[in-house]
Amino acid sequence: MNLEKINNYPPAIKDLSLTELKDLAEELRERIVATTSVNGGHLASSLGVVELTIALHRVLDTPTDKIVWDVGHQAYAHKLLTGRLDRFSTLRRLDGISGFPKRSESPYDAFGVGHSSTSISAALGMAAARDARGGREKVVAIIGDGSLTSGLAFEGLNQAGDLKKDMVVILNDNEMSISPNVGALASFLSRKMTSDLFVRMKKDAKSILSGMPHFGKDLLNLARRAEDSLKGFFTPGMLFEAFGFDYVGPVDGHQLEDLMETLENVSRLKGPVLLHVLTKKGKGYAPAEENPALFHGIGPFDRQTGQVKSSAGGPPSYTEVFGASLIALAEADPRVVAITAAMPEGTGLIEFSKRFPERFFDVGIAEQHAVTFAAGLAANGLRPTVALYSTFLQRAYDNVLHDVCLQNLPVTFALDRGGLVGADGPTHHGVFDLSFLRHIPNLAVMAPRDEIELRRAIRTSLVAEGPFAYRYPRGAALGLPIPEVIEPLEIGRGEKLREGTDGTFLALGVGVAAALEAAERLQEEGLSLAVVDARFVKPLDSELILAEARATGLLLTVEENALQGGFGSAVLELLADQGASPRVLRFGVPDRFVEQGTQDELRQRIGIDAASLVAQVREHFAQGASAQNSRITLATGV
Amino acid sequence: MNLEKINNYPPAIKDLSLTELKDLAEELRERIVATTSVNGGHLASSLGVVELTIALHRVLDTPTDKIVWDVGHQAYAHKLLTGRLDRFSTLRRLDGISGFPKRSESPYDAFGVGHSSTSISAALGMAAARDARGGREKVVAIIGDGSLTSGLAFEGLNQAGDLKKDMVVILNDNEMSISPNVGALASFLSRKMTSDLFVRMKKDAKSILSGMPHFGKDLLNLARRAEDSLKGFFTPGMLFEAFGFDYVGPVDGHQLEDLMETLENVSRLKGPVLLHVLTKKGKGYAPAEENPALFHGIGPFDRQTGQVKSSAGGPPSYTEVFGASLIALAEADPRVVAITAAMPEGTGLIEFSKRFPERFFDVGIAEQHAVTFAAGLAANGLRPTVALYSTFLQRAYDNVLHDVCLQNLPVTFALDRGGLVGADGPTHHGVFDLSFLRHIPNLAVMAPRDEIELRRAIRTSLVAEGPFAYRYPRGAALGLPIPEVIEPLEIGRGEKLREGTDGTFLALGVGVAAALEAAERLQEEGLSLAVVDARFVKPLDSELILAEARATGLLLTVEENALQGGFGSAVLELLADQGASPRVLRFGVPDRFVEQGTQDELRQRIGIDAASLVAQVREHFAQGASAQNSRITLATGV
Repeated sequence: MNLEKINNYPPAIKDLSLTELKDLAEELRERIVATTSVNGGHLASSLGVVELTIALHRVLDTPTDKIVWDVGHQAYAHKLLTGRLDRFSTLRRLDGISGFPKRSESPYDAFGVGHSSTSISAALGMAAARDARGGREKVVAIIGDGSLTSGLAFEGLNQAGDLKKDMVVILNDNEMSISPNVGALASFLSRKMTSDLFVRMKKDAKSILSGMPHFGKDLLNLARRAEDSLKGFFTPGMLFEAFGFDYVGPVDGHQLEDLMETLENVSRLKGPVLLHVLTKKGKGYAPAEENPALFHGIGPFDRQTGQVKSSAGGPPSYTEVFGASLIALAEADPRVVAITAAMPEGTGLIEFSKRFPERFFDVGIAEQHAVTFAAGLAANGLRPTVALYSTFLQRAYDNVLHDVCLQNLPVTFALDRGGLVGADGPTHHGVFDLSFLRHIPNLAVMAPRDEIELRRAIRTSLVAEGPFAYRYPRGAALGLPIPEVIEPLEIGRGEKLREGTDGTFLALGVGVAAALEAAERLQEEGLSLAVVDARFVKPLDSELILAEARATGLLLTVEENALQGGFGSAVLELLADQGASPRVLRFGVPDRFVEQGTQDELRQRIGIDAASLVAQVREHFAQGASAQNSRITLATGV
Repeated sequence: MNLEKINNYPPAIKDLSLTELKDLAEELRERIVATTSVNGGHLASSLGVVELTIALHRVLDTPTDKIVWDVGHQAYAHKLLTGRLDRFSTLRRLDGISGFPKRSESPYDAFGVGHSSTSISAALGMAAARDARGGREKVVAIIGDGSLTSGLAFEGLNQAGDLKKDMVVILNDNEMSISPNVGALASFLSRKMTSDLFVRMKKDAKSILSGMPHFGKDLLNLARRAEDSLKGFFTPGMLFEAFGFDYVGPVDGHQLEDLMETLENVSRLKGPVLLHVLTKKGKGYAPAEENPALFHGIGPFDRQTGQVKSSAGGPPSYTEVFGASLIALAEADPRVVAITAAMPEGTGLIEFSKRFPERFFDVGIAEQHAVTFAAGLAANGLRPTVALYSTFLQRAYDNVLHDVCLQNLPVTFALDRGGLVGADGPTHHGVFDLSFLRHIPNLAVMAPRDEIELRRAIRTSLVAEGPFAYRYPRGAALGLPIPEVIEPLEIGRGEKLREGTDGTFLALGVGVAAALEAAERLQEEGLSLAVVDARFVKPLDSELILAEARATGLLLTVEENALQGGFGSAVLELLADQGASPRVLRFGVPDRFVEQGTQDELRQRIGIDAASLVAQVREHFAQGASAQNSRITLATGV
């Protein structure tokens, strides 16, 4: 009821009574659970900030005042309160509303997000712009404790404490990012004050007091009071005070009344303020409260039981294949170690971490450090594999280039979620990796077409002499029987999978299956297309590609990556450098950010699924536009 | 004398007396000043750590024990102590020894470096590898206070405090990075304890004491002692203790005896230790002590007077043109603001910062934050220009992609030192920017051929509707007369500069001058080459390029960027997509890391200077290998 009123007119939230606001919280939870149980999504985080979101919109004058969410997967309540109730059932679906804040979607989404730890920087920019313009709007960033482990957040804090702009940073402390936090910072934020620091502080206090031994009971009281004061002073506010923030909190993030009052007060303070709010992931939905990691990002589930609608019985995911293979290889080679950046579950390394706790490193949300740390491991004799989602390696581009490849160190990059990821949309697609890795000297870059090839890639990476990257897609593998013996690959060698005379598909990764299917269908139409799995984007199998160029005169490159600078581009460079000029048609991700949708929907829309390939090849031949003809056409001026 | 002994046998440093070690320090300073006065180099930083370097090699068993330098521009004494005395006069020269630690140069260079803030991560990796292998070597990272402002260093600290590996991090605190430090962290490290934090601490102490008002003078003493104790405790060690490090220091970094003793003790401690060493940049050479920023990275200078050998009277540098132009445009548009990452001098923004202190932001060595902060500024109505060296933007690739371009925000990237930078070598060449920016949707990428075009690019960027990047070279501009009115460019429009019939140079940036000169020389040999300044790598001037493809059938792309995925690659993509197949010869940076040397030497070696272009074009025509012929050759199987 209230939610519908607010949907039509978001400022209506200002008129609700406390009881109505509490009802509103229930309505929001109801709606969030209902929709995510069908569409999947980031449930636990969004449930955790329902009261906080209500308090923010109640106290602030949005969209004039700016709310900057960090990561953004907790913004479902925010979306429901800002006019997106009607479309909420389209959450994360093709052409539906995004699972993340998105400037183009709503003026209430002040800053688009998807990767972590940007909120303090962005909010500080907005506050600085406000002051330069003479504006008066308030700026609030909301950042989770996990996101604070990233260096970017630290850089933002560091300048914010220095610039002294009026802004509020809300630390949404649920004691975990996606998995439980790691690192010194985590213990620092811990509510249980048991740190070495405090122990030392107590020791210091004692040594001060030992200099004046004659005060008896009063002195003891003084010592106790000093201890209490220091305790309160030291944790968890100390770090932020040290950075120049006023620290307020901690506040219970589910007590709406307190929260609104505190927020009201805090928003009137001058300078940078850190408001520490304690929340519970999954709050209000028992299955999510009990297992927040599972309900962090989840597929469709049964609302009553909390049971995930399983795809049991199907083939394993590429993620699972990766995790299992790395364990097998680590058993045979003690130099093999694995690194993740706060995603042991997501990257399939949970089992590895249990089997080899000493050889597993979770560095927190710190991709830059993950890569340079791996370079250090490799420089001192180990064979580290850095397992990240492709999109998150973007954070560590310089570290890959300088710390690993410039030194030609044998670090492996296992890039999960390469290509289109589906519902998470443009911030999560891994469609730039082939382009941003291909131009880095010394690095081998490979994309396996199936789980057997993935296993071979993993094995190859661990015996390669230099850095090696392989990227594999999100989702289920093909379900192929796994041979007993996994042969390593020859680096830079592709494989011809199908003969043909009218043209050759040069594909890699998931593109291979699409090309094979397309070739089969085209065969029925009388067109004979060869299919080559190029495997390597770098080094290219020049011999094989040039042979196909000579043999068929028509190359069709297929990749789930940006067409700019990717695999097809590499083929064109090879051909130009060799003075070869077959006709080349390139299929891949066009020069725009790709929306959300299922992987299949997006492939179809972009035109890289089998049916699209068939249609485009058919059209090419129908135009009678052979390579030679088109050249002549062009040469005569059309 | 001693230096020569050590050059032949580095462990000889263990046999020297304290007096001899002090003499050695003088010898090292002498040699460093002598060589940098001729070759240029990073003088001030290297002079600052002479005693520290001696102490390290004296106390540790290098190269078994690992010394990991941060940034690495302070490693000259280290090089001189580890067998590179004979070649030290080749410092930073073509085929000479590198200005930075380099693994391929010496086993004493444990980790190659050039960009800041990697040392903690790399050293932690080495320590973890040591423990996995059951090794016993010691690992020491040396990081400057400036480098600590980067998030990467924070990420390293965070995990190091957590992993508890035995390692020493030496904080080389000279109270400045390249320019004086910025950010809350800087005041935190300040030796003068005047921070708000301490004021609040005192207030707290007073309020504790106010509860027990009857102790008179003794109490006052107690309060004073408590204050002193807290003061010592709070700064500067608190931050590191909080992160799980044992803090030792501060120690005078020029008192060799103390330094060695402390280092000896510290290297025996378990777990992560932070040793705080106070040094003076430029120590021992008066002109550098007086002006450490000038002597940070300096060209040849007069050793007696400290006068820089000026190139006065020549044309202004591109850096100067940029700084002056941005001021002019900022005067006309209050939305124009500028951001630098700890390099106001290097990026030419010093004048801007004085003229518009409220519109200038130095964020510290924090490129990621610089870009996301700029996105926040743009999202709230300003027109920020982020001025960085091209190579340092690599650190912010994800922020460019996600925070700026995905949201299509009007942020400008002014990339100084695009292309080959010269003596700083592979870690500093800006030869990947066109490749790593070109595949990012929404971003316009441009490289001006001269200072007039740079001015036009700057003006264009400030009226563009989306993100815009222009990159310009290190060094002097052409000295062209500047027109009164600077016209903006049409985005995606090139310019034909010279007619020709046998082929067309498609060049941009510094490549244009080379192409023009080559075309002129080839004319004398009877070859008629057209020259087009493509200007934009993205969007390409398709019309102009296709017209040239039709007109001459031979395109010669020239760029000072990686051939993989760069401008030439973009041209090939355009041609393939249009079914056009002129012969294309690409000139640019090959698929390897480029060494150090003067810019001209490197251009010549790579084959992109005018003479090389002439030779290669001549050869192409001499082979009689017209585009058509080469195609036929290939088709028949060669």
